[in-house]
Amino acid sequence: MHVRAFIEQLERLAPPGLAEDFDAGKIGLVVEGRQEITRVCCALDATPFVVNTAVMASADMLVVHHTPIWTPLTTMTGHIAGLMRALLSADINLYVIHTNFDRAPEGVNDALAELLSLRDVVPLSLGCIGTTTLSLSEISLRLGGHIRVWGKVDKIGRLAIVAGSGFDPALLAEAEVLGADAFLSAEMKHSVARTAPLPCIEATHYALEAPAMQRLAGRMGWQYIEDPPLLNSVP
Amino acid sequence: MHVRAFIEQLERLAPPGLAEDFDAGKIGLVVEGRQEITRVCCALDATPFVVNTAVMASADMLVVHHTPIWTPLTTMTGHIAGLMRALLSADINLYVIHTNFDRAPEGVNDALAELLSLRDVVPLSLGCIGTTTLSLSEISLRLGGHIRVWGKVDKIGRLAIVAGSGFDPALLAEAEVLGADAFLSAEMKHSVARTAPLPCIEATHYALEAPAMQRLAGRMGWQYIEDPPLLNSVP
Amino acid sequence: MHVRAFIEQLERLAPPGLAEDFDAGKIGLVVEGRQEITRVCCALDATPFVVNTAVMASADMLVVHHTPIWTPLTTMTGHIAGLMRALLSADINLYVIHTNFDRAPEGVNDALAELLSLRDVVPLSLGCIGTTTLSLSEISLRLGGHIRVWGKVDKIGRLAIVAGSGFDPALLAEAEVLGADAFLSAEMKHSVARTAPLPCIEATHYALEAPAMQRLAGRMGWQYIEDPPLLNSVP
Amino acid sequence: MHVRAFIEQLERLAPPGLAEDFDAGKIGLVVEGRQEITRVCCALDATPFVVNTAVMASADMLVVHHTPIWTPLTTMTGHIAGLMRALLSADINLYVIHTNFDRAPEGVNDALAELLSLRDVVPLSLGCIGTTTLSLSEISLRLGGHIRVWGKVDKIGRLAIVAGSGFDPALLAEAEVLGADAFLSAEMKHSVARTAPLPCIEATHYALEAPAMQRLAGRMGWQYIEDPPLLNSVP
Amino acid sequence: MHVRAFIEQLERLAPPGLAEDFDAGKIGLVVEGRQEITRVCCALDATPFVVNTAVMASADMLVVHHTPIWTPLTTMTGHIAGLMRALLSADINLYVIHTNFDRAPEGVNDALAELLSLRDVVPLSLGCIGTTTLSLSEISLRLGGHIRVWGKVDKIGRLAIVAGSGFDPALLAEAEVLGADAFLSAEMKHSVARTAPLPCIEATHYALEAPAMQRLAGRMGWQYIEDPPLLNSVP
Amino acid sequence: MHVRAFIEQLERLAPPGLAEDFDAGKIGLVVEGRQEITRVCCALDATPFVVNTAVMASADMLVVHHTPIWTPLTTMTGHIAGLMRALLSADINLYVIHTNFDRAPEGVNDALAELLSLRDVVPLSLGCIGTTTLSLSEISLRLGGHIRVWGKVDKIGRLAIVAGSGFDPALLAEAEVLGADAFLSAEMKHSVARTAPLPCIEATHYALEAPAMQRLAGRMGWQYIEDPPLLNSVP
Repeated sequence: MHVRAFIEQLERLAPPGLAEDFDAGKIGLVVEGRQEITRVCCALDATPFVVNTAVMASADMLVVHHTPIWTPLTTMTGHIAGLMRALLSADINLYVIHTNFDRAPEGVNDALAELLSLRDVVPLSLGCIGTTTLSLSEISLRLGGHIRVWGKVDKIGRLAIVAGSGFDPALLAEAEVLGADAFLSAEMKHSVARTAPLPCIEATHYALEAPAMQRLAGRMGWQYIEDPPLLNSVP
Repeated sequence: MHVRAFIEQLERLAPPGLAEDFDAGKIGLVVEGRQEITRVCCALDATPFVVNTAVMASADMLVVHHTPIWTPLTTMTGHIAGLMRALLSADINLYVIHTNFDRAPEGVNDALAELLSLRDVVPLSLGCIGTTTLSLSEISLRLGGHIRVWGKVDKIGRLAIVAGSGFDPALLAEAEVLGADAFLSAEMKHSVARTAPLPCIEATHYALEAPAMQRLAGRMGWQYIEDPPLLNSVP
Repeated sequence: MHVRAFIEQLERLAPPGLAEDFDAGKIGLVVEGRQEITRVCCALDATPFVVNTAVMASADMLVVHHTPIWTPLTTMTGHIAGLMRALLSADINLYVIHTNFDRAPEGVNDALAELLSLRDVVPLSLGCIGTTTLSLSEISLRLGGHIRVWGKVDKIGRLAIVAGSGFDPALLAEAEVLGADAFLSAEMKHSVARTAPLPCIEATHYALEAPAMQRLAGRMGWQYIEDPPLLNSVP
Repeated sequence: MHVRAFIEQLERLAPPGLAEDFDAGKIGLVVEGRQEITRVCCALDATPFVVNTAVMASADMLVVHHTPIWTPLTTMTGHIAGLMRALLSADINLYVIHTNFDRAPEGVNDALAELLSLRDVVPLSLGCIGTTTLSLSEISLRLGGHIRVWGKVDKIGRLAIVAGSGFDPALLAEAEVLGADAFLSAEMKHSVARTAPLPCIEATHYALEAPAMQRLAGRMGWQYIEDPPLLNSVP
Repeated sequence: MHVRAFIEQLERLAPPGLAEDFDAGKIGLVVEGRQEITRVCCALDATPFVVNTAVMASADMLVVHHTPIWTPLTTMTGHIAGLMRALLSADINLYVIHTNFDRAPEGVNDALAELLSLRDVVPLSLGCIGTTTLSLSEISLRLGGHIRVWGKVDKIGRLAIVAGSGFDPALLAEAEVLGADAFLSAEMKHSVARTAPLPCIEATHYALEAPAMQRLAGRMGWQYIEDPPLLNSVP
Repeated sequence: MHVRAFIEQLERLAPPGLAEDFDAGKIGLVVEGRQEITRVCCALDATPFVVNTAVMASADMLVVHHTPIWTPLTTMTGHIAGLMRALLSADINLYVIHTNFDRAPEGVNDALAELLSLRDVVPLSLGCIGTTTLSLSEISLRLGGHIRVWGKVDKIGRLAIVAGSGFDPALLAEAEVLGADAFLSAEMKHSVARTAPLPCIEATHYALEAPAMQRLAGRMGWQYIEDPPLLNSVP
């Protein structure tokens, strides 16, 4: 498939118009490689391990959620030089779907809702609220562990979920108004926790977003490359 | 003691000139109460529990690390109206020492270094690096639990510490150059973890900063009010 | 009446959508008190006298034209701490109608036009122009004295009025084009007076705006609290 | 005298380095005319009357306090086109001394202090405070009438004065701390009057600043052109 | 004709709404002169020669493409004082049609396309593309000489043209996509030339834009004043 | 030589502190390659031809004047992807010396002054003025042709030179005051030419700056790669 056709296909799955303004220039074809696309890899992040695996797999295209060039750059050194050397030398394309995929049907938040078997789902400005019968332990299990619970959770009936870094006071307020009993997201900040109107369940960013990339890879017949951050709780 | 004398005393302990620019207008006497100061309470945050405890204790002054009015406001509603009603009705002063106390001698980072028994301490732009003989379990114990370790830690010889939200790429790079084996702070972000040059130990913001306020209260003969966020790991 | 119902009522009288952009966040419920509204006071400004009178009157709500928190604040000290202490301790709500009430039907400018018996009124971008048969002395009398006349006024047929601080070169130019013979407003500046295309009648801000609040109070059955600034001309 | 020499002379009287930042590009030689300066006129403002009088007097140079081009312009129409036509056709230079003359020795504030016979003068950030034995009526007389008094004035011992538009909350607070009993300036605003910590005496901008230009003209042997705004109080 | 009627006529020829945002306040009646318009001159720039010629011709109005007051000014000195003195003393109006005339039918780009006999013209965001049978020598001849060719030009079939300073990377890319073989404009920059996707023909700004003013003058019966910059190639 | 040592050497030749603010982040090691530097190439621009020549020459380091990443980028596509692929695949370092080399002793402007045999040289804010005995034809010859002369040049005694794009009104005014008879630079704009106080000699950006890179290469024993833009005058 020509890269143009591949991009059109991806733009249907994750329409660029759905992206947040801050993603301008940071989604779509972020690194340009060869034009003929036969073999596609997919991952959450373009880590060195992911890129090297894609190179070893002779991929023509790597689809990820997080761009490796977030801060606009005028030099090509260190970590980013290494990544670009690997991608450009092997002529691999890198395509990024970020907040446009968060919001897309069957996108990041939809995949998370499905992973947690939410029912009667209603949308939030970002993410959604749905009914769950899972206990905290079961939620932890489905997310691969490492969850932290801020505040007191009895029984969760309605659960708000926002994949990624979603503990925003305005979103929390919206979820409370819409009847959520708890709020699941990643990267809690102390100042937010102190005034949160709901108990908050903090998972890792990776645990909340990688499932959507894995499902996308499965659906499209691409090779999914798993590379979670190494994380341990003590004790 | 007159409030002016009290403020002079505090300005010696936490000189306003040490504060970051973003703290302008957000430290010092944040709420003005009565002028005679006899009874002083101290805490990390001005939570409803902390304020009510100070009122019950007939305090004239409450000293905290985090201002409750971070975002400049033009209305007095909801959570902040409740706090202000409690403070103003009881005529209690609220005094904030933030980044000026982070950097002060015997301040937030010094207290943390002491809590962890660091030796041969050298300063970072923010925080410091010192030699520790503690294991991860011992560090966790001293910090009251809830630590998460990002990356692989063998033996820590030199430990970088930054109280509060200090996982900044520039600070991490500085710590690496200065020979740190690991970096302890709070509020890790996925994007930082993915490219961190050092293994990172993530504690809670509260665990890293509250000890300094407690020590300050002890040193000054004030009443310390403990109010950690309710936090549990699952599983 | 519940405060929500009261607010809905006020939003019909002074629709927030009519406000200037600079009023964003500075109108509506500026201080949140108790939820049940039985007794309402009304004044132009939330001065200490006005607030104390409202407290003495056991008011649940005070409606004013000018917010006491114009500059966004991060501290609660001095004058504003006194006001907030009085309002919050007594659990009184403070509701502000500003430029949305200037423009509303029966609002500030309409009330002024009526006070001056203007006829054949046509709107300006702000304020209006109407025919008057009043002499300068009669205008002064109706406004409670203290008017100053800049330039030479013979007979006023058509009078432009802008309640508040309206001596703006663009408004003056508009009024001239629309046939005004004189322009009435408050807070003349030297630089504007020097190039004004029309004779200007300067009253006090209070004299031009308080009548609208008094009429509103009368219409709604609220207690109006008069508190003009103390002002004397010499000689 | 060559215009360069004339400018050097004026820069000694009103050093440009004393000017406020907002005066950048708006003081000094604002309109360039002929190079030989024999006859100089002086006034507070470059009004049409002042400019025409200077033309009639065959002046080579007109020195004023307020620039006629305050707002940077890209067109030359209306009022300003008329002024520029008169000045440029007659080849007259226009030189502006503004906040640099406010602060200069024997400048605007010094002239005002002298006019009011202030003694034991101490400086403010802008303006000064001095002891007066004048009554309000005598002050009014010396300023040519039209003063308004905000608040209650008993006996003035120490009087703060700021020529021009100086009713600034920070200046008022400074004057109160330094022991002023009243504050004299021009262009009072309602919002400032409502929270002023001192009684305020409001004169006209012209009355406060023109004396300095008149004295300067006298000292230098220039022709002073008086052109106060036409102002009457009613009743 | 009254100047208002003249302006209405020009606004039909070069509608202000077509202008770029950066032209705000810099087109239309830039210098206001007498109201009765009998004699009109026209040129590309308001140079001293052009203005003096208009004065000698007893013109009431001078129509130009480039405003002489591009940078907003707060002083009237040097070059601009000379121009304004000449215009204002003679009471001549100056009217500017800039990017609104670039885009107008029969405007600057249309006149250039006609001068070069382009056929099958399609528009660009700015300028247009058309078929030419002219050689480079013939193009040079029609433009009065002084063209420079960047890159290798064989035969030009489709020529992109942008009057004025149009060597913009985005415009070049657009022209390439639309099938241009070469791109004609003025004021090439080294950094643009180095990555241009098309051979570029650089004429002078004057050569590309003056023809439109000359044609306009012919069409309207105005006196056209030619004043090209003096330019010679060496060798 | 290790790349660190090489950089130290270059920082002595072109101290980063001499650079303009707009060069922040755009000079120094712009692309990071291998650490051992044996073979160095040098050119004005990192064009595809230059980069490919450096690759063919097995260079470890390429030193240029203009960074290829001027606009901060968040994607790696098109022209820049090609350049980066070539550099990164071959592990070549790219080092940029720009305005710091313009101002350095024996830097860009010094080399140009030497090429033109200027004597009695005095510095400008940027560039310099010196005495020349060359005719326009001889200047053109030394610069490789393609010069254009704006205005009338009789005999040049004192010549101002600014390598690169230096036709700035403030620089032109400075040169006139310092006694220049003509001003040599590149990239003349119509608006500047129209009000230039001096005759201007316009060469190409390349002709003015490349000699310095060539001399530097000669001095250091590096391989210089010549790649002027293809440019022809017609007729």
